[in-house]
Amino acid sequence: MHFTSEQHLDDGVLEREFTLGEIPGILWTPATTPASAPAPLILLGHPPLGLRTMYPRLVDRARHCAAEGFATATIELPGSGERPRRPAAEQARADLRRAMEAGEPVTDEIVDALVLPLVDQAVPEWQAALDALLSLPEIGGPVGYSGGVISIGIRLAVVEPRISAAVLFAGSFVPRAIFDEARRVTIPLHVLLQWDDEGNDRQAALDLFDAFGSEEKSLHANMGGHTGVPQFAGDTAARFLTRHLS
Amino acid sequence: MHFTSEQHLDDGVLEREFTLGEIPGILWTPATTPASAPAPLILLGHPPLGLRTMYPRLVDRARHCAAEGFATATIELPGSGERPRRPAAEQARADLRRAMEAGEPVTDEIVDALVLPLVDQAVPEWQAALDALLSLPEIGGPVGYSGGVISIGIRLAVVEPRISAAVLFAGSFVPRAIFDEARRVTIPLHVLLQWDDEGNDRQAALDLFDAFGSEEKSLHANMGGHTGVPQFAGDTAARFLTRHLS
Repeated sequence: MHFTSEQHLDDGVLEREFTLGEIPGILWTPATTPASAPAPLILLGHPPLGLRTMYPRLVDRARHCAAEGFATATIELPGSGERPRRPAAEQARADLRRAMEAGEPVTDEIVDALVLPLVDQAVPEWQAALDALLSLPEIGGPVGYSGGVISIGIRLAVVEPRISAAVLFAGSFVPRAIFDEARRVTIPLHVLLQWDDEGNDRQAALDLFDAFGSEEKSLHANMGGHTGVPQFAGDTAARFLTRHLS
Repeated sequence: MHFTSEQHLDDGVLEREFTLGEIPGILWTPATTPASAPAPLILLGHPPLGLRTMYPRLVDRARHCAAEGFATATIELPGSGERPRRPAAEQARADLRRAMEAGEPVTDEIVDALVLPLVDQAVPEWQAALDALLSLPEIGGPVGYSGGVISIGIRLAVVEPRISAAVLFAGSFVPRAIFDEARRVTIPLHVLLQWDDEGNDRQAALDLFDAFGSEEKSLHANMGGHTGVPQFAGDTAARFLTRHLS
């Protein structure tokens, strides 16, 4: 892990860009991190649109988390931003677009081709980032995961014991295989669902919520489309993480 | 409205029992209510088990609300507590029990007989209580409604313009006619659903949530049975009321 830039944001949050091998990432730490008390960490998931595109929303989440005493970090997803394209994924995305524009059903094959290789590649990268981040003296546990591609969050929750709570956003296609993995999730979950999400099958999201094996899981459904999560719902999700990571 | 008793609880909350005609009720006001700023009011709904039975849970909710600066009040439901039995309702309840014990479907006729006369009688009573409560100098608007028989909450939200936000608990049978009224609800709603509620049809609850006409409505589903609403879910509901009534 190499830090490539660092700046203090106006509220004192320290923003550092880094690379982890070929993968770019960003780490935000609260203005005042007493050396004696390393900050708990929240991994900020995001859709595969590139860190540069997502930066305004990410830094907004990072500032809110920092105000609660949390460090946050994110890395570029495979095939996004400056990282090499993934031709199979581009093909799957084109197939998805074609199916949706034609009003045809999105087949399991398309969803699998779109999501499974992404999950298979991304999850070990987030774990490697976690190794590097937790080796920094200013960062400690526990670790939460929040947002982004829900299938990545599910796989991480299953395979990564250092993650102790997760906020998941029921807003994208979930392969059958990941649905089955959801039954093996046992950490506390806070699931956000946009009731009128144009790109998301509501019943599939409810079925997925039902499938999670966690003893503590709660579903928070709000009005509006994919990007319309209300501020108060974000605040409630933040309180969930504060409750479990503090 | 006649006050029949008054006591200060240990946290300074003033608890006053009253009668409104033949109907008993309880009013709780915060320890410090500056005369210049009448407290907003939350009507505390409850299941038809009698105020005496429900008192421990009601006073707990009242204390939490008082800590946020809210006055709270509740009245006895028709046919409950010391109030005269309602033979038709008793019959409907017996029919319901028999159907459930026999594993038979609960028919619309049973649900209608159980709930509609209760709603028809209770809602004007809650409105009369509201008239009396809002005439007290220490109580002002805005007014919220929270909990209890969801069909009463729905009807009140439709017919009573002084109620500006409601927390509803999707935990009981809803007649078809009330379901239709739900489409006419427009105030902000915070709907609680116990995912594994043994006495509640989950799909019916989701359909009801979908039907509400409110632009701001959110569904909060948590694990556990009918009475197992977790503390954090109660806290989130309280924040919803604080946000809309402060």
